Amino acid sequence: MSLAEKILDGDIRSAARLMRDIDDGLRSAVEELKTLYPHTGKAFIIGLTGPPGAGKSTLVDQLTAAYRKRNKRVGVVAIDPSSPFTGGAILGDRIRMNRHADDEGVFIRSLATRGYLGGLSRSTGDVVNVMDAMGMDVIIIETVGVGQDEIDIVRMAHTTVVVMVPGLGDDIQAIKAGILEIGDVFVVNKADREGADRTVRELANMLDMKPSKSGEWQAKVLKTEAQRNVGIEEMVEEIESHRSYLFSSGAISHLLEEKNANLFMEILKDRLFAEVFGHIKMNGRFREIVDGMMTRQKDPYSAVDEILAERFGKGA
Amino acid sequence: MSLAEKILDGDIRSAARLMRDIDDGLRSAVEELKTLYPHTGKAFIIGLTGPPGAGKSTLVDQLTAAYRKRNKRVGVVAIDPSSPFTGGAILGDRIRMNRHADDEGVFIRSLATRGYLGGLSRSTGDVVNVMDAMGMDVIIIETVGVGQDEIDIVRMAHTTVVVMVPGLGDDIQAIKAGILEIGDVFVVNKADREGADRTVRELANMLDMKPSKSGEWQAKVLKTEAQRNVGIEEMVEEIESHRSYLFSSGAISHLLEEKNANLFMEILKDRLFAEVFGHIKMNGRFREIVDGMMTRQKDPYSAVDEILAERFGKGA
Repeated sequence: MSLAEKILDGDIRSAARLMRDIDDGLRSAVEELKTLYPHTGKAFIIGLTGPPGAGKSTLVDQLTAAYRKRNKRVGVVAIDPSSPFTGGAILGDRIRMNRHADDEGVFIRSLATRGYLGGLSRSTGDVVNVMDAMGMDVIIIETVGVGQDEIDIVRMAHTTVVVMVPGLGDDIQAIKAGILEIGDVFVVNKADREGADRTVRELANMLDMKPSKSGEWQAKVLKTEAQRNVGIEEMVEEIESHRSYLFSSGAISHLLEEKNANLFMEILKDRLFAEVFGHIKMNGRFREIVDGMMTRQKDPYSAVDEILAERFGKGA
Repeated sequence: MSLAEKILDGDIRSAARLMRDIDDGLRSAVEELKTLYPHTGKAFIIGLTGPPGAGKSTLVDQLTAAYRKRNKRVGVVAIDPSSPFTGGAILGDRIRMNRHADDEGVFIRSLATRGYLGGLSRSTGDVVNVMDAMGMDVIIIETVGVGQDEIDIVRMAHTTVVVMVPGLGDDIQAIKAGILEIGDVFVVNKADREGADRTVRELANMLDMKPSKSGEWQAKVLKTEAQRNVGIEEMVEEIESHRSYLFSSGAISHLLEEKNANLFMEILKDRLFAEVFGHIKMNGRFREIVDGMMTRQKDPYSAVDEILAERFGKGA
């Protein structure tokens, strides 16, 4: 039996093994993903993002517990801000999620950010597909930060929860503006802190200023205290309202189209680069180009032109 | 005269124009970049990164002023966390930098984060090259956040300054670990805030635990209050010490090799994808693949296999 068949059979170890193979970029993983793909598309995918210090991990933990209470199987993909050099995940095994460690209905996977050739958003997409094929009902993707990579990852979700926290200071304005458009549900966590109401008000005002058409989803701002399990049920209800809206309004079809297009583009980009780069690295061309750049006798733009012309048989 | 020739002649408007062309992905921009490339490699590039709310923009402003006092021409590339949908920069024209608006020795460029096909790190590299060819002595790249994109961008720098701030809460531990390896100079800004000394001590302890060889650069932790211009001179001196170290130790050659390799890989990745994607988008293949994915009758992994086989004339 192939790994994929074992996974479809419910074997957790095989799923973990395939995810490691994906991480390691093994060619065989692609074949397994092909087998799994027809069995994907059933899970509800929640993205959860926000700046450092917002308490996202604790929120994910509570969200997981809340969905378990509703008898849903929950997958969690956590993107750790880890060293680009060692490649290892930092937080050990995400200690705070440990209460779910013995629960077979929960599958947690931490992904480390990778080096230059990483394609983090692609491997996240692959891991989500494995969890989806495993039969997870809900998959939560947690990302730290506000960068492009995080936005790309969040785009894989059906519903995106943006977590804010009181008192992050001035340039939070810029971040708010940036994430305003990706959030379907806004949460001000650590709501017992000073300034929480002000943060809620500011966010609500910014959302009000956003132009919207009638019938469109209106994002709300909720307050939570994840540590004390306060406001979690309301958050789940709001997430579920958004899910209902997606299907009743028909917005789901556009969203799925975008998600599928993005996944395909990620895979194409990674594989194209791996193919060509592997080739010029092996035959010494890469070395030669970098050496030429060091002395400024070769410019990288012309070098790429030449490679494209050779590969695709035409000028430019 | 080409844009590139005008830029080499000192024409600021042509530089701004070329940067817009780079943003817009114009093919002609690549030709101009080829002409400029032999004139690059002279500027000293400083990366400045850290979490939201750390006061990075104010620090960059002060750093710019400090280098201007030393009679250096300064370029600033600021990566704004902006909407992936509108593509526009958020902070208007970076109001806090306005005191340098009339200074011909300062050139500021904000780059917005882009959509899926963006290649932010590539266009940042291109813009840095333009500023370098313009004769900027120092180029400061400011990024917000801790994501992979930010790390990639910071890798373009000779010297990386990591800015922290007191009181960011618990999961700052993870971030610290992640950025520990990219920082050459650590700055705790807003050092008048409660907990500043603790943050300095924690960072210093983490740096102490990092294994290091004799003769290697030892990063220090400095305190600044950018708003009141406190600690800026010390920061500049530390940055300059690191620059001296790079050259005296010979570490510069490995660093340059890595920078050049990365720049080349970014360009290759972007251009390969643009070439192939443009083709399958035009001939309807892309549409067909996404439609097939929607019904799960086509899997993206096999679709990419087929395209690679056609393009490169072999299986897988």
